[in-house]
Amino acid sequence: MNESRLPAPLPVTMLTDFGLVDDFAGVCHAVIVARAPGAQVVHVTHGITPQSVLQGALVLRNTLPYLPVGVHMAVVDPGVGTERRGLAVRAADGRWFVGPDNGLLGPALDAAGGAVHAVVLESEEHRLHPVSATFHGRDVFAPAAAHIAAGHDPRQLGSEVDPATLVGLDLPRPVVTEAFIEATVWNVDRFGNVALLLTSAELRGLVADQPIAELVVRNSRYFATLATTFAHVRVGELLLYEDPYGSVAVAVNQGDAADMLRMRPGGKLVIAPVARSA
Amino acid sequence: MNESRLPAPLPVTMLTDFGLVDDFAGVCHAVIVARAPGAQVVHVTHGITPQSVLQGALVLRNTLPYLPVGVHMAVVDPGVGTERRGLAVRAADGRWFVGPDNGLLGPALDAAGGAVHAVVLESEEHRLHPVSATFHGRDVFAPAAAHIAAGHDPRQLGSEVDPATLVGLDLPRPVVTEAFIEATVWNVDRFGNVALLLTSAELRGLVADQPIAELVVRNSRYFATLATTFAHVRVGELLLYEDPYGSVAVAVNQGDAADMLRMRPGGKLVIAPVARSA
Amino acid sequence: MNESRLPAPLPVTMLTDFGLVDDFAGVCHAVIVARAPGAQVVHVTHGITPQSVLQGALVLRNTLPYLPVGVHMAVVDPGVGTERRGLAVRAADGRWFVGPDNGLLGPALDAAGGAVHAVVLESEEHRLHPVSATFHGRDVFAPAAAHIAAGHDPRQLGSEVDPATLVGLDLPRPVVTEAFIEATVWNVDRFGNVALLLTSAELRGLVADQPIAELVVRNSRYFATLATTFAHVRVGELLLYEDPYGSVAVAVNQGDAADMLRMRPGGKLVIAPVARSA
Repeated sequence: MNESRLPAPLPVTMLTDFGLVDDFAGVCHAVIVARAPGAQVVHVTHGITPQSVLQGALVLRNTLPYLPVGVHMAVVDPGVGTERRGLAVRAADGRWFVGPDNGLLGPALDAAGGAVHAVVLESEEHRLHPVSATFHGRDVFAPAAAHIAAGHDPRQLGSEVDPATLVGLDLPRPVVTEAFIEATVWNVDRFGNVALLLTSAELRGLVADQPIAELVVRNSRYFATLATTFAHVRVGELLLYEDPYGSVAVAVNQGDAADMLRMRPGGKLVIAPVARSA
Repeated sequence: MNESRLPAPLPVTMLTDFGLVDDFAGVCHAVIVARAPGAQVVHVTHGITPQSVLQGALVLRNTLPYLPVGVHMAVVDPGVGTERRGLAVRAADGRWFVGPDNGLLGPALDAAGGAVHAVVLESEEHRLHPVSATFHGRDVFAPAAAHIAAGHDPRQLGSEVDPATLVGLDLPRPVVTEAFIEATVWNVDRFGNVALLLTSAELRGLVADQPIAELVVRNSRYFATLATTFAHVRVGELLLYEDPYGSVAVAVNQGDAADMLRMRPGGKLVIAPVARSA
Repeated sequence: MNESRLPAPLPVTMLTDFGLVDDFAGVCHAVIVARAPGAQVVHVTHGITPQSVLQGALVLRNTLPYLPVGVHMAVVDPGVGTERRGLAVRAADGRWFVGPDNGLLGPALDAAGGAVHAVVLESEEHRLHPVSATFHGRDVFAPAAAHIAAGHDPRQLGSEVDPATLVGLDLPRPVVTEAFIEATVWNVDRFGNVALLLTSAELRGLVADQPIAELVVRNSRYFATLATTFAHVRVGELLLYEDPYGSVAVAVNQGDAADMLRMRPGGKLVIAPVARSA
């Protein structure tokens, strides 16, 4: 690549569990624009539940179709400073992903056609020194993302590895019986909406065309209406709906379902058909 | 319009109740820059109290004079997915507003000289498909804002409607008597400062040039000094002041007035003159 | 300066205690890009503990090496609206700083080689009118930062003052004895990691090469492992480590040290060697 005439930098998107109270996200942004001047940086979210690789992986996969093609940096990294690898990975659709090799990138790579090229970020020349043991976002991943965004050769970042060696991620499958479904809560949003690892098709397989289902949480039972949007039930009532990323989710119209049901990410929710005799 | 030579994109500002924990604001940003590359996006705030159309409308109106002329996207949208209309509206001063037709845009449009042109966002071609029932920020409003910011013809977004048909917003007026004022709390900020739907002129009409007034909250009484800034009273003391957007507000120097008075948006505060005989 | 051909604007970084719930940070961003179109704005953080000049000063100093050279606006300003001065200051390394004269800029200026040129922001022409008594971020500092970023002459912003007259900041020093160290907590981050005003060298002077030290907080005692990263201790265990900015800090692997120890910024933590006879 002729580095004397680089094209305009690629957009860089960031997804982390850094939060926005500290400087972590801002400093990574600064490192990126200092090394790739003019790059557009989009903060997808920094609100992933701390160290929740599963949640981060699902949000990255869900939001990917809406992101400009560019460099997608993702950091949820409980193993920072250990032997876990740092990666830059190119997907079949041309997008680049930068982050730890802990499964975080897996579902998004699958959605992008699979990994076709992977580099382990071990080039000392392309890290910030001293490299801290606990903030590779700043010292390893942001410089790597900027390097690619600026149009430099990603192979300079380290040695190539077989994409088949990347750490995978197991998504918790719902337990589906004829009498009930038990699904895992993977996200609770700002409005208290509770997203499940469950598809509409799986839900309909259980409740068919019934307009109401029963939710069971810690020995309490609730009725929820199957609806497409909040305002289709009365204020304060529960609904089951397909959220904007295709998960079945539980909400309360103008209320907070997570608070009402006391559900948090990682929790389990049982859904059952309403008894015909009721 | 000759679309083969578009000008530089207009700035886009965003104001929502999406919060920053989830991906909602970031994904809208991504949709905008994916469709209007190079557009500067300013996140005015995503911290509007969930579904508080009143608060969103007032913050949009207050901040408008400080925003670069461009496309102003605002989303506080409890009726998402129902028959409420989505709008792009041009104001007399040349600014464009994009958001739901629920009163949110009203005070800002008034401040911008009134609506002169309104389009209902119903063009299927300019939405993201499938259009979710609960996230029109991503699927309807962000693409529309990007379309206008990129210099395309807003009339392509849907059919024109008479601006006189836009949904209006009633601002709660203070109750003003000779003995007291009862005003509505419309905002509590990060510092615990409590903003009222009340002007300095209305307050002065009650307390004239007295340096102290009495606050009555749920049968408790407090003295507050009329001051221009926090440091004009002692640490821990209450003051009444004109906030940076012209609302009368209550604060505690280096403290949290909302916490002390247990006030939240939507609450009522009574202000009375200090008895002359005291 | 020939103002008819200005260069591309300088990057502007922002660090404040404004939070992100309100419009404060967003409006300052808007003012900057309205007056310096095309300027890249990096939000380093708006999560400084409200009115904590010490914390703001340390975060600004710590993050500075990672920020693109440009205009660094910092606002933590309990004295807003009083006689405290507003400043634009150039450091020996060419960076510009904009903020209140209350010590906030001091450690960063020292790190940047010292202040070489200071202007008091008193030009009425370069403020937004009416100037509010409580939001100089919007009305004084953001316009000044934009002025410099856009390439205009900083001397137009007010009158020059001797940099030696700038208000300084005293950093709380640890109490170091042969038996223990008492250090001040200056930051608690999103993960509950507790940063101390203490260097690794000071800690090693006390505990030498022992692998474990004792923490004393309000009459409770805890053992903490000296480690370089979280995963080097078991889940739920305490560690002492050097954080990414060189402070000694206390963490819990996959846990929240601030919560376990009930520590907040400004608190004191005692560290002692483990008794040899133990």
